[in-house]
Amino acid sequence: MEIGKNIRLMAISTSTVYGSDFLVYIRDRIADFIGEKQILFIPYARPSGISYDDYTAKVSQALASLGIAVRGIHEFENPAQAIREASSIFTGGGNTFLLLKTLQEKGLLSVLKEEIEKGKPYVGTSAGSNLTGLTISTTNDMPIVYPQGFDALQILPFNINPHYLDPDPNSTHKGETRETRIQEFHVYNVQPVLGIREGSWLEVENGQVVLAGNLTARLFRQGATPVELSPGQIDF
Amino acid sequence: MEIGKNIRLMAISTSTVYGSDFLVYIRDRIADFIGEKQILFIPYARPSGISYDDYTAKVSQALASLGIAVRGIHEFENPAQAIREASSIFTGGGNTFLLLKTLQEKGLLSVLKEEIEKGKPYVGTSAGSNLTGLTISTTNDMPIVYPQGFDALQILPFNINPHYLDPDPNSTHKGETRETRIQEFHVYNVQPVLGIREGSWLEVENGQVVLAGNLTARLFRQGATPVELSPGQIDF
Repeated sequence: MEIGKNIRLMAISTSTVYGSDFLVYIRDRIADFIGEKQILFIPYARPSGISYDDYTAKVSQALASLGIAVRGIHEFENPAQAIREASSIFTGGGNTFLLLKTLQEKGLLSVLKEEIEKGKPYVGTSAGSNLTGLTISTTNDMPIVYPQGFDALQILPFNINPHYLDPDPNSTHKGETRETRIQEFHVYNVQPVLGIREGSWLEVENGQVVLAGNLTARLFRQGATPVELSPGQIDF
Repeated sequence: MEIGKNIRLMAISTSTVYGSDFLVYIRDRIADFIGEKQILFIPYARPSGISYDDYTAKVSQALASLGIAVRGIHEFENPAQAIREASSIFTGGGNTFLLLKTLQEKGLLSVLKEEIEKGKPYVGTSAGSNLTGLTISTTNDMPIVYPQGFDALQILPFNINPHYLDPDPNSTHKGETRETRIQEFHVYNVQPVLGIREGSWLEVENGQVVLAGNLTARLFRQGATPVELSPGQIDF
C-alpha cells in the first residue's frame, strides 16, 4: 500500500489528553509540522454542537501563544477557494458523520483530497484524523445525520479508530468493547484498522507513516490476531 | 405521541447482565410476555460476526429450559411469510447498522412493522430494541455497513439508546460521553431519546410504555435538561 511522497499529514487521536487543556500537549508539534504561522480551520464536526465561530475561536486561542493565525473556513464566501489558497489545514474533532456530510454537501471532499495530495500540510484530530482513512466506518460517534456514503478522504490506505480504548477488565458493562466492534467491521470490510490511543498520532511524510507519542497503537487486520505497534515507522 | 393499543412489545437494553449468562435474567419475563411456546428469531445483527445458525442455536439453548421452540428466520425460504406466520418475534442484538441494512435488503421492515402493529408480540434486545424507535441514530455501534437511511420500525415515537452508560467521574478518557453524544444528536434531531440502562427494559401494551426492572432510565429532550424516570408508566 503506497502513500504519495508529497503527502504531509498529522492524524491525531485526540485534541485533548487527560489533565491538560485543549491542544496543549500537541500544539508545539503542530506548529513545527506545518511550518507556517497560519492555518485554515474546518469546524464542521461541531463537538457538543458548538457553533463554527465558537469552535474556531477555541482553536485560535489555543494556538495564539505560538503566533499562529487561525481562520475558520465558514468565514469565506468560497470555501473551496479557501482550501486551495490555505497554506495548511486543520480539521477538528466532533461528530464524524456530521463532518463528512457537511463536506459532501459543500462539495469539498475532492478539493481537500487534491490539495493534500499536492503536499499541503493537513492536521486532523479525532474525527479530523478519522477522515484521512478509507472510510469513516470505524468512528466511535453516533450517526446523528445521514451522509451520502461512508467514504472518507482515502489518503491513508487503512481505517483509523481514534480514541482507541482497551477493554476494561473490571468493567461490569456488557456493551461491545472497541475490539469487538472492530472485529465486527472485519466481517464485512477488508482494510486494516489502526486503533490510535489518546496521546498518540501519526505523522505522514516522504511516503512513510510514523506512529508518534509514547504509546503503542493496535493494528487490526481481517482474519488475523491484532498486534501492538511500537512508536516509529509503520510498515503496512 | 400515541402508541397503537394493539402493540405488544418488549424493548430490552441488553441480552446479558453482568455476572449472569445470556438471557438468563430476562427469559422468564419474555416467556410470560409472549405467552407462546415458540418464537421466530431474527439473527441478522450478528454480534461478533457470529453466524445465523450459531446465534439461533445460542438463543434456542437459552430458552430451551422454558420449553420455547426457536426457529431462525434464515431457515425459511420466504422470510416475509415466516414473519407473517410467526406467533411472536425476537430480534437479537449485535450491530444495528447490519441489522437494519439486512432487513432493508430483504424488504422485511414493512412486514415486520405491519405484524407488530396488528398485535404480534415483539421482543428486541439491544440492536433489536433500538430498531423499535424512530431511527437507529442513537445506536452505540460502529457503522460497519451503509444502510439506505437510518429510519427504524417507528413503532415507538422516540429513539432508544440501549446499554445507556453514565459518565464515569474517574475516567481519564477524553472521548465523548454518552450524554454528550445524545446532546449532539439533539442539535440535528427533535425526537426524545430514552437511555435504557443494562437490566432495564420497556414493556409496551394497551398503548402504554412501562419502564421495567429496578433502575431509572434517562430521558433526553431537545433543548431540555435530561431527567431520570423511575420504573413504571412513562408519559411522553
